[in-house]
This record gives sequence, C-alpha cells and structure tokens, in this order.
Amino acid sequence: MILKRITSKDNAYLKLARSLLQKKYRQQHGAFIIEGIRLAEEAIAAVLPLRFVLVTEAAALSPRGRQVVAACLERGVPCFETEEPLLAQISDTQHSQGLLLAADCPLPLAQRERIPADGCLLILDRLADPGNVGSVIRSAYAAGIGAVLLNAGCADIYNPKTVRSAMGALFKLPVLSLADEQILSLLRQQRRRIAVSAAEGEDLFQCQCLRAPLAWVLGAEATGASDFWRRQADWLLGLPMTVGAESLNVAAAAAVIVYESRRRGLMV
Amino acid sequence: MILKRITSKDNAYLKLARSLLQKKYRQQHGAFIIEGIRLAEEAIAAVLPLRFVLVTEAAALSPRGRQVVAACLERGVPCFETEEPLLAQISDTQHSQGLLLAADCPLPLAQRERIPADGCLLILDRLADPGNVGSVIRSAYAAGIGAVLLNAGCADIYNPKTVRSAMGALFKLPVLSLADEQILSLLRQQRRRIAVSAAEGEDLFQCQCLRAPLAWVLGAEATGASDFWRRQADWLLGLPMTVGAESLNVAAAAAVIVYESRRRGLMV
Repeated sequence: MILKRITSKDNAYLKLARSLLQKKYRQQHGAFIIEGIRLAEEAIAAVLPLRFVLVTEAAALSPRGRQVVAACLERGVPCFETEEPLLAQISDTQHSQGLLLAADCPLPLAQRERIPADGCLLILDRLADPGNVGSVIRSAYAAGIGAVLLNAGCADIYNPKTVRSAMGALFKLPVLSLADEQILSLLRQQRRRIAVSAAEGEDLFQCQCLRAPLAWVLGAEATGASDFWRRQADWLLGLPMTVGAESLNVAAAAAVIVYESRRRGLMV
Repeated sequence: MILKRITSKDNAYLKLARSLLQKKYRQQHGAFIIEGIRLAEEAIAAVLPLRFVLVTEAAALSPRGRQVVAACLERGVPCFETEEPLLAQISDTQHSQGLLLAADCPLPLAQRERIPADGCLLILDRLADPGNVGSVIRSAYAAGIGAVLLNAGCADIYNPKTVRSAMGALFKLPVLSLADEQILSLLRQQRRRIAVSAAEGEDLFQCQCLRAPLAWVLGAEATGASDFWRRQADWLLGLPMTVGAESLNVAAAAAVIVYESRRRGLMV
C-alpha cells in the first residue's frame, strides 16, 4: 500500500484540514476533523461520508492504522501520508496519534428527520464548554436519548474537543443546532412534556410525574437554564445534594438525569 | 490595605509556588496550590490552613478579591501583590484570575480519622486523569459519599487540575491516597460490602442486593477495575447501555452510581 506523500505545509489538503479547527471554516466547507485511531474506526463503522485521510508513516504501519487506511481506500477516500510535525499543526491534542480524517458534517435536515417522535430528547441551553457538550452527548446516547438539540449559545457540535469527548456517539445519535423557537416548535409538535434541570427544582428522585414523550433541558454551566426555557417547563427538577455541596458538573448532572429517565422506562 | 510587593521571579514565595505544580515538590513541602477567587473563598470557608497568598493588583481591588485578602490577613496569612506575568507562570489555567493560595495538604492520618464507618465510600482504582478524579470527587461529595480513597495508580489528589475540577469538595470530604492492601484492610475492618463497577457486570438498576455499609470501586478509564478489586467484589455491576454504545466517561458513570446509591438510601 503506497500512499501519496504530502511534504509541504502549503498543500491544499493540509491547509483545508488546518482551517477546520475553526468553526467559521467548518461551516463554510461543511466538514470537520476526526482525530485518532479509535474515533476513525467508529466513523468508518458508522459509514460517515469522509473527504480525506492524513496519516503518518508510523500510524499507517500500525495494525489498526493500516486497517483504517485500507477501509478508506476501498471506499475511494483519498489518503495521504504526511510527517508528524505537519499533522501536529492540525491536531487539537498534545499527542497526535498520527491519524486524522476529514468528514462531512451531517446535513441538519437529514439529522432532523432522524429525531424520534417518542421517548426522551435532550436540549442543551447555552452549554459553552465543548468537552462538556461532548461528554453529555456520549452519556445521552449510552442511556438511550433519541436526539440532542443545541441552541445558539452552545459550543459547536463539530469542535474537535466536542468530537473527541463524544467518543463516537456523535456519529450515531442525531445531534443538531437550532434556534430556541425552532426547538420549542418541534417539541410542541411532538406534544412533549418539558423538564428543566434547575438547582432549586423539586427533587428528581421524588418526582413521580415524568412521562414520555419528554424533553429534558440542561442549562449553562454557571447560570443554569434561561428564562425562555424556565417559562416552558412543565417541571423544574434538580438533584438532591449534601448540605454544603454547591453544584455538580453539568456533564455529571446530565448523566444522572438521563440514566434516571432510562431507569423509569422513558426511553424508546 | 497595602500589601508587600514581589517583583522578582526569583522571590522565594514565587519559586515555592511554581514548584508546587509538580507532585514531587507538593509532597516535599506538604502544600498545594488553590487557584481563582471561587476556590479561594471555599478554602477560607472550610478553614483550610493557608501558607501564603499571591494576588495581582487588579484582583486585590475587586470586591471578592479584597474580601479574600482581608480574610487571609486577619488569620495572619502572608499576602503578597505581584504582577500578572509572574503569576501566570504558576497558573495552571490559560487565564489566571490573578489570585492564588498555597495551602497545607491535609495530613493523611487526620483524613483517615474522618472516614465514616457507615454509608458509602468510593474507591478509585488507577483513575489517571486529574480532571476525572476531581469531577468524581465533586459528584461523590454532592451525593453524600463519606470518603474517597485513591490507590497508587491514580492522578495526584493535589494536582491543580484535580483541585480545580473538584470545586471545593476536596476541602470538605476526606480524600486520601492509600495502597490497595491498606484500603482493603480498612473495608474489611468496617465490614463493608464491595461493589465493583464493570461494563460486563449485572445491570445496576436491576440489582436489588446493595446495602450499606458499602464501598464502590471505580476502575481506570481504559481498562476498568484491576483483578485485585474484581477478586474482592461482592458484586460486579454496570450501567445498561444502548446497543452500539461502547462506554461512558468514568466521571459520568461515577455520577450515576453515587446518585443511584443515594436514591436507594445507602448514604449516611
């Protein structure tokens, strides 16, 4: 297997890949970066449309790297060998694994059609940290949430940190960004109840009211859910806490909430 | 309020503070760094023994910064004003908040005496990422876990990233590092049952067996709990997952586990 080599940092593929670290260019090109062997394997298994592959010689010779490259070549995806220092300029991590894919961002309309009508959705309201957003998507998918909808103030879905901490869940679950009003109109159309996570809310574990179809709203790290979503809430619910404990990390709270919803049989 | 000024990077306090970014020197000096206004407020509220304070002029003039400095001066803690670039060398974050405390690491023996005999403990088995360790400590405290015990392969409790993501829980909950055998002997002495989190374990939500006094063991990010802890397990329990979902972030799994334990009334 002999790959074409890229040796100049001015190569068009390298330049495109570097630009995809910025949201503006991800939107312009409709593409994003997937980094590392494991995520690449997940992207291939999920049959994500791929644009091109950049790999170091060492990664291409490793057993798993070789399989990734072979699978991509078989699908006609252009694969290029390049040098570690050139790849490191694109990598969002301190230690690049020497393998990087550029993939198409799924089309919002196609994602929207995949949103189930029953079960439980998760709405993220101005969750600004991409690592948190990714971790929430990962937990949501594991628990059986049907889709994750992000409003305008959230971190970008295709930020490399979101992609990495979602660990493949992003390739399987419908995840899309919409305006608050669009989200609300979808929820109304689906006749969903709305539960808003709020520190001052009723104890989640005491509340016997929750039923599907349901939408959970999780608010911003520092300030919680906005007035817009609080006004729409059928219930304000919070996690009980030890006296003296101030708050939970939002990704931790999300995990508890989606699994409590699963335990109650609210997932499809 | 006029503070002594530090202007040289070779000042002994600055050098000591810089050295505390490394575990070796934290152990040598028995001290660690607390960064940012909010954590400083929590440290003061928890009456943590403090060694000294470094603050920029801007932070010392802010309302909350002024209160922190006043509270420290009142307790006889030396406070120094220094310049942002000097403080940035010690900061573990990209944007230092201009305020940094050096505090005594609590003595392991004193921590050990605070471990409750009933309720639920959490054992971390080779959890390597300091952000995860901190987040787990934060969730554990919020849910009502009585103490968190870390074995030898874990991230350092006083790593600045652990301190930051624990968000004050570290100042309130007994958290200490012990060898596996020491932990086990403590659990035996307290006649605790041992539940080990394992992907292949029985469904946590189905299991009706759990009862206090209990110890939960959470294993390493990639490989799960060690054979040592699996052999000690009264139960291997896991979170149910959607088909296709591979795993949860360990901090997310920890949050679900400690809150399910709380829901079942296993906390003190």
